[in-house]
Amino acid sequence: MNVGTVFGVGVGPGDPELVTVKAAQLLGRAPVVAYFSKRGNVSNAFSAAQRYLQPGAEQLPLIYPYTVELSARDPRYISALRGFYLQASASIMERLARGLDVAVLCEGDPLFYGSYLHLHAILQREHRCVVIPGITSFAGCAARAGLPLVSTDRVFSVLPGTLPEAELEQRLRAPDAVVIIKLGRNFAKVRGVLERVGRAADATYVEHGTTQRERLLPLREKTDAQSVYFSLILVPQLGALPARAEEAPWPQS
Amino acid sequence: MNVGTVFGVGVGPGDPELVTVKAAQLLGRAPVVAYFSKRGNVSNAFSAAQRYLQPGAEQLPLIYPYTVELSARDPRYISALRGFYLQASASIMERLARGLDVAVLCEGDPLFYGSYLHLHAILQREHRCVVIPGITSFAGCAARAGLPLVSTDRVFSVLPGTLPEAELEQRLRAPDAVVIIKLGRNFAKVRGVLERVGRAADATYVEHGTTQRERLLPLREKTDAQSVYFSLILVPQLGALPARAEEAPWPQS
Repeated sequence: MNVGTVFGVGVGPGDPELVTVKAAQLLGRAPVVAYFSKRGNVSNAFSAAQRYLQPGAEQLPLIYPYTVELSARDPRYISALRGFYLQASASIMERLARGLDVAVLCEGDPLFYGSYLHLHAILQREHRCVVIPGITSFAGCAARAGLPLVSTDRVFSVLPGTLPEAELEQRLRAPDAVVIIKLGRNFAKVRGVLERVGRAADATYVEHGTTQRERLLPLREKTDAQSVYFSLILVPQLGALPARAEEAPWPQS
Repeated sequence: MNVGTVFGVGVGPGDPELVTVKAAQLLGRAPVVAYFSKRGNVSNAFSAAQRYLQPGAEQLPLIYPYTVELSARDPRYISALRGFYLQASASIMERLARGLDVAVLCEGDPLFYGSYLHLHAILQREHRCVVIPGITSFAGCAARAGLPLVSTDRVFSVLPGTLPEAELEQRLRAPDAVVIIKLGRNFAKVRGVLERVGRAADATYVEHGTTQRERLLPLREKTDAQSVYFSLILVPQLGALPARAEEAPWPQS
């Protein structure tokens, strides 16, 4: 009997129709479907993928050890997460050993800021891991907003809101197109930096982008300081698009 | 009679199966399908989308004015491109006025470094434009390589190879995860910078990623200096994943 293959399957930002044809076909054949979840929460990845699963598939939820956030530097958090990823890998390997393929559902893209990366690091040592790319949350949110992300010869950057304030500020002083992720309790800090560098007025805030709970508004119209994990801020590149009028291949309005 | 809607449709990096379910459905209904093309070349976007089009759909190729590359700063190039985008918009608007929806095929994601951005800037002044996001080429290539793009609290950047050498070097001295696009005749310059900052050994070169013409190899094994437009270099974030062993939630190998 052959051992199974791991499929890291990107299911996109939330809207089930933003799953790719390849992912949908693969999910329709997968005997085991694993997904990360907080205890008591509905998994966003599972919601996006559910309609494509075959009826008899085994569902293998991988439950994060903490529902209350500890600092990522806290040794208890690190130890618990380490144990979690080892245990999750062991559950998956047990199915692989029985010849079953395992699809691991990943919000957005599997290799782009996700929990799957940690499983991939463990599982690829001994198993075949195939990755199906997914629509990133920033692309899904920009599409919903109808906002150009980046053009021509400009730099595009994704900045986690967890970065130190000074580094965020230095990065945002460059004219790059920027997406800021991991807002949550970093939201007030991030907004403060955007105001200080003069880029708050052009920024767009998106929460649960492409889902039925989507909230999308200019950052200046968001008056509270509450934010959720599944949110981001789109900051267009500085200057016109492109930077100089004489480079513009279309007439300026 | 209602006027039509413009759909900027991301068709992903090349593999037709990396089209989303939403895009496939939309293409199956679109009465007019526009796509950018060089004269005499097969459009990559059209190849990815073709199987999803309805048989009777009108095909509207938008032929770039130059097949031989001029500098993007050359006034003749700018003038020709300006005329091209105006003419392309006019062709599309003529269909919209007749009540026909027009799907504009976009390689990768429509709002991420693409020609569609220029049409969007013109058409959205007077028409409804809906964007369907797509899999970016960097996500498609990373998936094929099985390479983590970026994790945890690290910065991810996309650098066009057209940037000045000094700026490329400065950016690549940061520990960020980086993708370098727009190689072509910038390839030798980019490789030189990567070697100088000590990041060439970890880099991966991908050409026509996810297509049948894909070429994927460690940069150090690419001995020639030839490169094509549809190529990129993946440069993993510096240090282990994550940066410090004590932050790692999984055992170090």
